[in-house]
Amino acid sequence: MSNPVSADVLARRGVMLVIASPSGAGKSTLSRLLLQDPEFKDVSLSISVTTRKRRTSEVDGVHYHFRTVDEFNAMRERGDLLEWAQVHDNYYATPRAPVEQALIEGRDVLFDVDVQGTLQLYQTMRADMATVFILPPSIPELHMRLQRRAEDDAATINRRLKTALTEIRHWQDYDYVLVNDDLGRCYSELQGILRAERLKRTRREALHGLVDVLDRDLESLLAAQAARL
Amino acid sequence: MSNPVSADVLARRGVMLVIASPSGAGKSTLSRLLLQDPEFKDVSLSISVTTRKRRTSEVDGVHYHFRTVDEFNAMRERGDLLEWAQVHDNYYATPRAPVEQALIEGRDVLFDVDVQGTLQLYQTMRADMATVFILPPSIPELHMRLQRRAEDDAATINRRLKTALTEIRHWQDYDYVLVNDDLGRCYSELQGILRAERLKRTRREALHGLVDVLDRDLESLLAAQAARL
Repeated sequence: MSNPVSADVLARRGVMLVIASPSGAGKSTLSRLLLQDPEFKDVSLSISVTTRKRRTSEVDGVHYHFRTVDEFNAMRERGDLLEWAQVHDNYYATPRAPVEQALIEGRDVLFDVDVQGTLQLYQTMRADMATVFILPPSIPELHMRLQRRAEDDAATINRRLKTALTEIRHWQDYDYVLVNDDLGRCYSELQGILRAERLKRTRREALHGLVDVLDRDLESLLAAQAARL
Repeated sequence: MSNPVSADVLARRGVMLVIASPSGAGKSTLSRLLLQDPEFKDVSLSISVTTRKRRTSEVDGVHYHFRTVDEFNAMRERGDLLEWAQVHDNYYATPRAPVEQALIEGRDVLFDVDVQGTLQLYQTMRADMATVFILPPSIPELHMRLQRRAEDDAATINRRLKTALTEIRHWQDYDYVLVNDDLGRCYSELQGILRAERLKRTRREALHGLVDVLDRDLESLLAAQAARL
């Protein structure tokens, strides 16, 4: 074929990509690779709303949207949050507006949410989501990776391992499952998933326009042929 | 990660890949590319059962499984056919056994079936299927491609165009939709779809074994840590 269709015919709705894994299985590395990949320059990370105090190294609107508890409650009551959680004394949430704006503009959004967050997102946004769970190849490997992070003490590692057990037990809540025994292959699999998800019929709303034209032109052609017979 | 898991952990169930398009939109070329691609050497074409007479150029079991009408009816009554259709005086069908064997062995099967065949396959095999519809970029392009096939007369082309209209109106019955305005890009999209479909959690049954080991090893590690605290 040598008849390229116009770019607007190929316009599509964005993908909500959730990557989940126990700490140490490679989620952060894979997310960073994706966000730095020139092929996926339209993918952005969802920025959470939080009520926790801003650290001096953090920038409002970049690392988090920092809000007061009153502001947070008002957002929640208005339905402006796609999912939310309380962690210790602080609230965290995914704001709805930037996600919906990105989806309409055909930009994909990457989410760093846990199992509970994923299940909450499913309740309202299932059709827009593609969810990927990353499994570690073994527990000794996972443990070694957590120990290598010099900043974490034994208690932190122990807490992360406990959380890992909960997360791993929810692996069946995800659409895709990858085993991260080889980072290169695992990243290439992640790329493939996003490429394919973008081609799903439900995301290619602009194709209705192309199909309408094909249908009309085909009817005209058949009518012209019938007149000639 | 540098701890490759064994190949049996990565074993998976095969994919039933349906590629559909109006005649002339590129389905045959894309299917041939896929069947010849070294990356996808485990993909095979589903061989239909038919009651029509074998042509001298055809080999039983290669082009079709040639059967008598009685044999065909017996297969149908035993539930040995995944879908079937009557075309003029002949019957055509997809036999169940080779498909199920391939799926169990982790081999993908490519199907050349029309919309009615796809809808019949959905009734029993939906979870194993990934369906792709190929749209032509325009009707003049489609018409030109049909005319270029020197062997087809005007009546055949007219019949193909009528069928094309019916097929195109069913584009929303498919999981993925591709626009074939560039064969290279379109084939690369098809490759991406198959790569991603292979990674779906529901197809990776062998991962249950890995998760059981991870769960057990993580519980042991946490128990050992608790004993030491």
